[in-house]
Amino acid sequence: MSVTISDIEAAAARLAGHAVETPLIESPALNERLGRRVLIKPETLQRVGAFKFRGAYNRLSQLSADERTRGVVAFSSGNHAQGVALAARLLGMPALIVMPSDAPAVKAEATRGYGAEIRFYDRMTESREAIAAGLAAERGAVIVPAFDDPDVIAGQGTAGLELVRQAKARGAELSAVLTPIGGGGLIAGVSTAVKALSPSTQVFGVEPAGYDDTLQSLRAGERIGVKPAFRTLCDALESPAPGVITFPIVQKNVSDIAAVDDAEVAQAVRYAFSVLKLVVEPGGSVGLAALLAGKFASLPEGPVGLVLSGGNVDPDLFAALLRGET
Amino acid sequence: MSVTISDIEAAAARLAGHAVETPLIESPALNERLGRRVLIKPETLQRVGAFKFRGAYNRLSQLSADERTRGVVAFSSGNHAQGVALAARLLGMPALIVMPSDAPAVKAEATRGYGAEIRFYDRMTESREAIAAGLAAERGAVIVPAFDDPDVIAGQGTAGLELVRQAKARGAELSAVLTPIGGGGLIAGVSTAVKALSPSTQVFGVEPAGYDDTLQSLRAGERIGVKPAFRTLCDALESPAPGVITFPIVQKNVSDIAAVDDAEVAQAVRYAFSVLKLVVEPGGSVGLAALLAGKFASLPEGPVGLVLSGGNVDPDLFAALLRGET
Repeated sequence: MSVTISDIEAAAARLAGHAVETPLIESPALNERLGRRVLIKPETLQRVGAFKFRGAYNRLSQLSADERTRGVVAFSSGNHAQGVALAARLLGMPALIVMPSDAPAVKAEATRGYGAEIRFYDRMTESREAIAAGLAAERGAVIVPAFDDPDVIAGQGTAGLELVRQAKARGAELSAVLTPIGGGGLIAGVSTAVKALSPSTQVFGVEPAGYDDTLQSLRAGERIGVKPAFRTLCDALESPAPGVITFPIVQKNVSDIAAVDDAEVAQAVRYAFSVLKLVVEPGGSVGLAALLAGKFASLPEGPVGLVLSGGNVDPDLFAALLRGET
Repeated sequence: MSVTISDIEAAAARLAGHAVETPLIESPALNERLGRRVLIKPETLQRVGAFKFRGAYNRLSQLSADERTRGVVAFSSGNHAQGVALAARLLGMPALIVMPSDAPAVKAEATRGYGAEIRFYDRMTESREAIAAGLAAERGAVIVPAFDDPDVIAGQGTAGLELVRQAKARGAELSAVLTPIGGGGLIAGVSTAVKALSPSTQVFGVEPAGYDDTLQSLRAGERIGVKPAFRTLCDALESPAPGVITFPIVQKNVSDIAAVDDAEVAQAVRYAFSVLKLVVEPGGSVGLAALLAGKFASLPEGPVGLVLSGGNVDPDLFAALLRGET
């Protein structure tokens, strides 16, 4: 059940003409501040505003004609929901998304805008897995996992494929690549691509403080769950444990993981606004937050690739962050 | 005193390695909404967050050693000030900026951050031209005009050069290019590049309502000044009249000009935030506003190049725009 560079190449072929090949962006001001080149991969500019479209499209485009008719079910607080909803629309199949009732309004609206049906559930009293399983059984629909699926991981990996190739095209040998970690689908895919194309490049992950299940799992040498009593600004990264498929890939490929707190994330969001002129959601900016706060003592010298994974943030929350209200 | 494609090519050579070659961005969601391809040139990602760095660097890099010692003076409410300040710092010369006391705080801070000295003046009672002339005479410094200067225009034209070449590289024959108009430096340079490299491409300009001096001048066949009693959200575009050098270029190259009001601009800023995930200042978004509001009846079919000219907006104003408070 692992994922190879061939799987990622095949995913890239499926995505060609459907996903955006996001550009590589470089900010002289950020380079100067950090004393190194930072090659930014803004997946904020991807369809649905996040890398999640890549994995969803790669998975859905491989369904049989019969499966397409019965459609797909996914559970997600946001970006995966939008990725599945849009991929389903483009491929002409029905999609049902199971979403917590407190999901960011902007993500729920966008998901509905892509034509998906939404079933809200209560985070505290209901199990999204049980609801999704029941609905999928009723309809004979396929459940599309948010991260623990080889095709989803391979799809996310195409961002890493592009990043390494684009960096080489502009003469940069990446010493490291940084990505956010939720369930680990992005870093599993990206690190597989990076290690295949540029074996000496190290891969680092960043989690929100309190939701550092993957860091704790790495240290323990086995999958550890966390259950923090508090929320984080990074709604996209609130996974309670690494995936069964993603974790061994992380163990093999990832050099280190850092955790950033809400204040560091808020500063990164503001920095992206004022200096990079990019709209990045809190969860998408944790890699930038880690760089700005100097979280990685072991980061090698040289150019760094930085994945800004998503930009779907409620306007009111963004305004609050800009005004320092949160 | 005109500007040729050779001047723009020479400017591009001077800017190489100093200015950012901003990428071309395409949003499937925007394409779908407008029923055509829109190739976005985000000068928001340029150094200092606006195209102005191009013209300033092109002008300043041609000063003699003696002139460099005495430095430069500029008057500007913002983006030109930052462009001159950073170009001067990179070239090791002193810069003094004459700036209205009500300029956006973010622009004044950034200008100071680049090491320039600032002299504030009162928009209502003082003449910035007189202040700048006095200070320049005192110091033997060169005054760098914001737009009415062949080297400044040629520098801005490099954005057009890149746009046409990048569009061709991705197989798009541009039917039209849209840029904002303040004093006309950007559209004069960009239209010169566009008409030289792709003669059939039409160029359109957009001004803020009330500050449509270039549109009125085009209609009158001569330079007309405006003096509106109100401000506009587009602080970067509040020029009272087209330039002596820029206007004949606009007359020769520009097919049509539209005006957009504050409500249309605010909507474009919000659209850029929520769909494009780009931070665009009000003045930088007038082209997008015109497209979204369908302002150009004569816009030809086919792919359009859209210059988003700057992203320097006060966080508090941006928050107010997101919350619909302004």
